[in-house]
Amino acid sequence: MIFRTALAFLAAATMATAKTNFVLIFCDDLGYGDLSCFGHPTIHTPHLDRLANEGQKWTSFYAAASVCTPSRAGLMTGRLPIRNGMCSSKRRVLSPDSAKGLPKSEITVAEALKGAGYATAMVGKWHLGHLPDYLPTANGFESYYGVPYSNDMDRIAGKGPKGREGLMKPKSEYWNVPLMHNTEILERSPNQAYLTRNYTNQAVAYIEAQAKSEKPFFLYLAHSMPHVPIFASGAFSGTSHAGRYGDVIEEIDWSVGQVVKTLQAQGIDEETVVVFTSDNGPWLPFKTHGGSAGHLRDGKGSTWEGGMREPTVFWGPGIVETGIVHEMGSALDIFATFLDLAGVALPEDRIYDGASLAPVLAGRGHSPRQEMFYYHGSELYAVRKGEYKLHFTTKTEYIGQKPMKHESPVLYHLGEDPGEKFDVAKENPKVVEALVQLAETHKGSFTPPESHLEARIPRGEN
Amino acid sequence: MIFRTALAFLAAATMATAKTNFVLIFCDDLGYGDLSCFGHPTIHTPHLDRLANEGQKWTSFYAAASVCTPSRAGLMTGRLPIRNGMCSSKRRVLSPDSAKGLPKSEITVAEALKGAGYATAMVGKWHLGHLPDYLPTANGFESYYGVPYSNDMDRIAGKGPKGREGLMKPKSEYWNVPLMHNTEILERSPNQAYLTRNYTNQAVAYIEAQAKSEKPFFLYLAHSMPHVPIFASGAFSGTSHAGRYGDVIEEIDWSVGQVVKTLQAQGIDEETVVVFTSDNGPWLPFKTHGGSAGHLRDGKGSTWEGGMREPTVFWGPGIVETGIVHEMGSALDIFATFLDLAGVALPEDRIYDGASLAPVLAGRGHSPRQEMFYYHGSELYAVRKGEYKLHFTTKTEYIGQKPMKHESPVLYHLGEDPGEKFDVAKENPKVVEALVQLAETHKGSFTPPESHLEARIPRGEN
Repeated sequence: MIFRTALAFLAAATMATAKTNFVLIFCDDLGYGDLSCFGHPTIHTPHLDRLANEGQKWTSFYAAASVCTPSRAGLMTGRLPIRNGMCSSKRRVLSPDSAKGLPKSEITVAEALKGAGYATAMVGKWHLGHLPDYLPTANGFESYYGVPYSNDMDRIAGKGPKGREGLMKPKSEYWNVPLMHNTEILERSPNQAYLTRNYTNQAVAYIEAQAKSEKPFFLYLAHSMPHVPIFASGAFSGTSHAGRYGDVIEEIDWSVGQVVKTLQAQGIDEETVVVFTSDNGPWLPFKTHGGSAGHLRDGKGSTWEGGMREPTVFWGPGIVETGIVHEMGSALDIFATFLDLAGVALPEDRIYDGASLAPVLAGRGHSPRQEMFYYHGSELYAVRKGEYKLHFTTKTEYIGQKPMKHESPVLYHLGEDPGEKFDVAKENPKVVEALVQLAETHKGSFTPPESHLEARIPRGEN
Repeated sequence: MIFRTALAFLAAATMATAKTNFVLIFCDDLGYGDLSCFGHPTIHTPHLDRLANEGQKWTSFYAAASVCTPSRAGLMTGRLPIRNGMCSSKRRVLSPDSAKGLPKSEITVAEALKGAGYATAMVGKWHLGHLPDYLPTANGFESYYGVPYSNDMDRIAGKGPKGREGLMKPKSEYWNVPLMHNTEILERSPNQAYLTRNYTNQAVAYIEAQAKSEKPFFLYLAHSMPHVPIFASGAFSGTSHAGRYGDVIEEIDWSVGQVVKTLQAQGIDEETVVVFTSDNGPWLPFKTHGGSAGHLRDGKGSTWEGGMREPTVFWGPGIVETGIVHEMGSALDIFATFLDLAGVALPEDRIYDGASLAPVLAGRGHSPRQEMFYYHGSELYAVRKGEYKLHFTTKTEYIGQKPMKHESPVLYHLGEDPGEKFDVAKENPKVVEALVQLAETHKGSFTPPESHLEARIPRGEN
């Protein structure tokens, strides 16, 4: 066993620049505490637990933002939403009536890898523009299958119970969401109970096809679940200990298992890196239909840790060393990490907000990430450096609180106090000063571009 | 590898009744969320994670009570504190001025195993009576080394800052606690920074000695940590990401590693079952010096889940199958489980509140535990059956709330809602009725004996 592993590691090391495939699995509204390996008491995720044990479990890995669109914009570009035009103080995410999407001037990780000879595909939720100019196929993905925005958008007026009840006792027919193939709409109101399964089948078929190719590939599998309305297929409905939400997460776990099984069956598991993470924290007001941030405070939409820290696993036998990583990482680092592992240089014409985590994955170094900027829309609410996090403004989303600007910013030590309970600003004036300075320097270093989130399609045309 | 494991399993199966050793590692005030494998973001517990991966991680395992003395009385006897006289509504735990301890009429697991030919030893915190008649050596343990009650008791008047500050910036010399060997006091005010290490060294030495003997053994290693005042030795101070509390837990994790390493070095790991759990939840008012209940509500002293559910691991290669166990278990089941694994019949002259978990450990069956009774002192506050838990009275200890009797009891589904946030009593009247009936039947089935917690040594004599 040792011999084989050593050989595989050598082979992977020499082949890494030649052919490292990437499978990026991205969930929607998954909470930090929603997997067994992140401590959930009743949701059972054996496949993810196994990947976490064999690969790396990252306990301090951040989404680029606390809601869908800006989070995904950061993931795709390696740049903060405030820098790539995908945030706004007026609208937090794109809607079916949005006229724009990710700016053309941005380079996605798919474009960068495709330019370097990769085959690229996306399956699942995009949410960076649903009009042809902004779809995945216009952003470096050679193929696309999925729902282009959130599965609770495009509600059909008059169908089903109103408001939250409609979302918590849902039927697919309440929504007019499109299921797309490339730029074509395959159907409206697809049966959402099969979204996870269909996405998985598409992903598996793609991996099988690509395994036969000489080209390396990048597959972005972005589940629509567990965003409300939540649905599991018949095989999972009523099977978990944790109700409908548990069923949904356990089906996603099954999906991860299918992906890994396929990589292994095709003999390409040792030349592929799988990343699992989510776009933002759990949508807590949906109670048992929302997830749990576990030890962390608040959830989706919030710049408290529960809004942006995600349960993250990197796996790749022979490429990713085994371990728990407490250092910081972010979806903003995926761009640089994949390019590094693929042997592709970062574009030099723009500023990136992430750096390559490859040294950490290989067990050879520290994370380059020492800082994190927490934006709410286009406003900087908090900054983290090392273990300290300073909040200028807080807004507890769970209780629908209004933004609270702190005259004296509040400081937490996230190592001792991951739940952000005990303000230690008074005891650490120098830390506060340094973090205030960090925020000022950051804000003064660039002029945000025009937001692409505000433009709407004239009524009746969408 | 498969061949060897199968052989080991067969060997263990036939030898189980001949010689299965037990190492029971018990912590003090450890929170449900305080280990990496139970989701802590910054405390690193590689040894316990490994045991959880190789053995069984129990996600719904309960202490017998939410504070030290009754919890330990339940652990030792397999009987609820209300049945063995070790609870009271006047005093929750024994103190240095307590005149009594565990009633003579009770049979401890040490007594039962000793009677069946086991060597027995205890190292650590006892807290079931510090006078000679009540010490471990009077309760079936052939030897004892440790502090007989909590490490924050017996505070020396006038030494160090008062109240909580003294506990959070502590020096060992503030306390007069005795370190004992059998019935002798070795020293007063031992350096608490070395308690974990000293206990570990004693445990390792005992295992090494017993490995040479024909007799099977039972070792009860009950750490004084992480009960405040918390202390780690020099090798661990300042080394964790999680401050002093993290240092303390990581030293306990090291201790677990030492125990396992010793079992392996002595070649007795495949004939030994190691259990790791704690007496009650985290002492939350101590902030960063208290732990975290993770997903669960409230902490020490509470009948909310955070007070009584503990991070629990069973390990024993060839005896304990690998897996995550979501079924219920309790420290009350340890007595019957150990006796079962040792091939010793349960005494028939009394009622037990636990049953053998051996079928679950062997991967051959379901847990016998379907119910849990949550006592606060001598009053029944809540009951659980299956996934449902009904509270008659709640008292959130974290905020020092007074007991709140609910005219209509509140009901939670712990599968969907492990954090006990969403009362579902109205939607489930039949479940409420069944649980009310369960509580009534339970209370009507016995007359509690006289409490042993109230008697005090006359002033000046302790």
